[in-house]
Amino acid sequence: MSYAANPDVVSVVEPPIAEAKGWVAGRTWPAHRPLLDLCQAVPSYPPAEALREHLAERVKLFETAQYTAITGIAPLRTALAGHMAGVYGGTIGAENVLVTAGCNQAYSLALMALARRGDEVILPLPYYFNHQMWLDALGVTAVHLPFRPDRGGVPDPADAARLIGPNTKALVLVTPNNPTGAVIPPAVLAQFRDLCAEYSIALVLDETYKDFLDPGEPRHDLFRDPAWGDTVIQLYSFSKAFSLTGYRVGSIVAGAKFVEQVAKLMDTISICTSRIAQDGALYALQHLLPWADGKRAMMAGRREALLEVFASGNLGFELVSTGAYFAYLRHPFVGETAAAVAKRLAQEHGVLALPGTVFGPGQDDYLRLAFANLEAERMGEVGDRLRGAV
Amino acid sequence: MSYAANPDVVSVVEPPIAEAKGWVAGRTWPAHRPLLDLCQAVPSYPPAEALREHLAERVKLFETAQYTAITGIAPLRTALAGHMAGVYGGTIGAENVLVTAGCNQAYSLALMALARRGDEVILPLPYYFNHQMWLDALGVTAVHLPFRPDRGGVPDPADAARLIGPNTKALVLVTPNNPTGAVIPPAVLAQFRDLCAEYSIALVLDETYKDFLDPGEPRHDLFRDPAWGDTVIQLYSFSKAFSLTGYRVGSIVAGAKFVEQVAKLMDTISICTSRIAQDGALYALQHLLPWADGKRAMMAGRREALLEVFASGNLGFELVSTGAYFAYLRHPFVGETAAAVAKRLAQEHGVLALPGTVFGPGQDDYLRLAFANLEAERMGEVGDRLRGAV
Ligand SMILES: Cc1ncc(COP(=O)(O)O)c(C=O)c1O
Ligand SMILES: Cc1ncc(COP(=O)(O)O)c(C=O)c1O
Repeated sequence: MSYAANPDVVSVVEPPIAEAKGWVAGRTWPAHRPLLDLCQAVPSYPPAEALREHLAERVKLFETAQYTAITGIAPLRTALAGHMAGVYGGTIGAENVLVTAGCNQAYSLALMALARRGDEVILPLPYYFNHQMWLDALGVTAVHLPFRPDRGGVPDPADAARLIGPNTKALVLVTPNNPTGAVIPPAVLAQFRDLCAEYSIALVLDETYKDFLDPGEPRHDLFRDPAWGDTVIQLYSFSKAFSLTGYRVGSIVAGAKFVEQVAKLMDTISICTSRIAQDGALYALQHLLPWADGKRAMMAGRREALLEVFASGNLGFELVSTGAYFAYLRHPFVGETAAAVAKRLAQEHGVLALPGTVFGPGQDDYLRLAFANLEAERMGEVGDRLRGAV
Repeated sequence: MSYAANPDVVSVVEPPIAEAKGWVAGRTWPAHRPLLDLCQAVPSYPPAEALREHLAERVKLFETAQYTAITGIAPLRTALAGHMAGVYGGTIGAENVLVTAGCNQAYSLALMALARRGDEVILPLPYYFNHQMWLDALGVTAVHLPFRPDRGGVPDPADAARLIGPNTKALVLVTPNNPTGAVIPPAVLAQFRDLCAEYSIALVLDETYKDFLDPGEPRHDLFRDPAWGDTVIQLYSFSKAFSLTGYRVGSIVAGAKFVEQVAKLMDTISICTSRIAQDGALYALQHLLPWADGKRAMMAGRREALLEVFASGNLGFELVSTGAYFAYLRHPFVGETAAAVAKRLAQEHGVLALPGTVFGPGQDDYLRLAFANLEAERMGEVGDRLRGAV
């Protein structure tokens, strides 16, 4: 092209999932030994049949083909506010909710509404790659919070305190985490919140995988603080819990004043979230929480199966942390890049994983498995193939 | 909130449509004299029934609930490339197409991939407000190309030549235009293209309303230039032609290298466009071009009806330009702001129009009517009410 592209955008890495998929593009696999695609976290089951039936009725209506309010349809905003208040306690109103086309969009809009070129945002390592890519695109400097395998991947507020400077606008946390699966305990989250409040920066919490937490595990109490809106910005996705990835629907829960700022960006970027996706999300909150909990239980079963695989024998690969959809592994090929290992695993052993390096610097010893893509009964195959690779 | 929002985002104006709708929110209107809502361009008819039936089948499939490739599903990219090449001539391939969640997203992604904070982009007056809002949010300076009512609203390449400086990254044109309805003749478009090529800046062409051009009017020949990808970036929307506003689907057609840059932004902002929306767009291109042309004819009828209303008598309001969905009027209340006039028209006369000021500086004498929302038979009511207001 003869015109120039924005250098900040040029500096953004290639989308890693597309690149990994490229390693096996066009390959065919023997029926008895299919590719185990553990690179992107995608539910292995369709949405609930009742939801699909509901949407089949909805698409017939004119209303479904029309723009909605920028912030989303009122019943969904109300239902989501009620849902979050039910899960976490505290007071959350419809005015705190903005419906987005997925959690990536929630993150993009929230971070752009917080920071601009030259500002800084604290991002724990390893990061969810799209988080870094968006900051790079904005020209915002991502300041990396160290990976703490010694804490099971839980980032340390004390580390964060040392990184906050005059240009810091926000601190981002993902729990349960992608890529490590680590869950940040409520007390640690509260420490992060206190730190952010002290420095008047936003705490951005990506809870895409909140529905995969064990029901027995305690929920954070951030929303119980009446002043939560002064600090906390929660991002959520309907993609994983309700198997709606292709519809693109998620949300931002934040102080009402911040929602108003984000709404301006939403208007310019998308006008509104796809109406049919909003209808699906509303139906999910109204009718499918038990269904989603069944899927959670199934995912927990897959995780058990994975833990057994790693417990049962010397795989060469070490399980550093796991939770929700993901397992973070240390590979045994010292001195070899994670990308080279991942490519070989894919092409020679039919296990498509992501190299740790797509999640940030210093991650060359790691691989991420989106193990939850695979049925529990088949988890043994992962073990066999990893063993075969060593 | 205790954290600060990005000052560039704070500087963005409130979404004008939401604000205008606020003037009449909660109001009820007598049945014999309903509100004439001409503020947002929304098709007054549902999508084709065959399309709705098709989508009702599609939503039952698992595939529909899954992420697609970042750039869109392959058959849609191919079909859209073929469609554009069919309409305009020239060579356009699937690799030139990126599917977006509407034309606003197409614009947002394209402009962000072109310009960053401190850069300049040339935007003709009056502008489509979301175009300005996005540049403001990015911290990019919009350099305004003068409004030329003397040229029927067609911007002048000679004016543009004087505005290009070392920081200029792109020039944006909307044809048929929102808000004026003006159509830029092919020869003028070619002049703009030559100017952009000379200075190595991008020509961004928003063709949201291309399907409402009279079939007898000549199409531009920009794509016939084998080097079109070096300069031209075309944006399109399925929203208006196929009444799919609520689904959110549009496209970018550009040089393949630029598409790769935009794909990185698409990945971070949305991962992909809603699959069901893509299915709808594909069906539309495959089966609904005759249907869309029928709607175009109907819109042309509405425009005729509007022209008659203005021809028939002294309304006080002057029709400055009209085309596709819109009419741009000069109101007779000299010295009164357009916002005050629009608010009074809405609240006292039940005609919801947008004040010219939302389309940029110097537009205080104007109002925009999205007249195509209204059946031809009812266009007389618009005349009656405007007359009543004077
Ligand atoms: C941590 C995290 N945030 C956001 C997303 C994006 O989800 P969505 O489909 O809602 O955009 C993902 C998806 O993988 C994710 O893992
Ligand atoms: C000129 C112009 N561009 C883009 C859009 C946005 O359309 P979409 O629904 O495809 O985002 C509109 C809608 O009014 C428009 O008038």
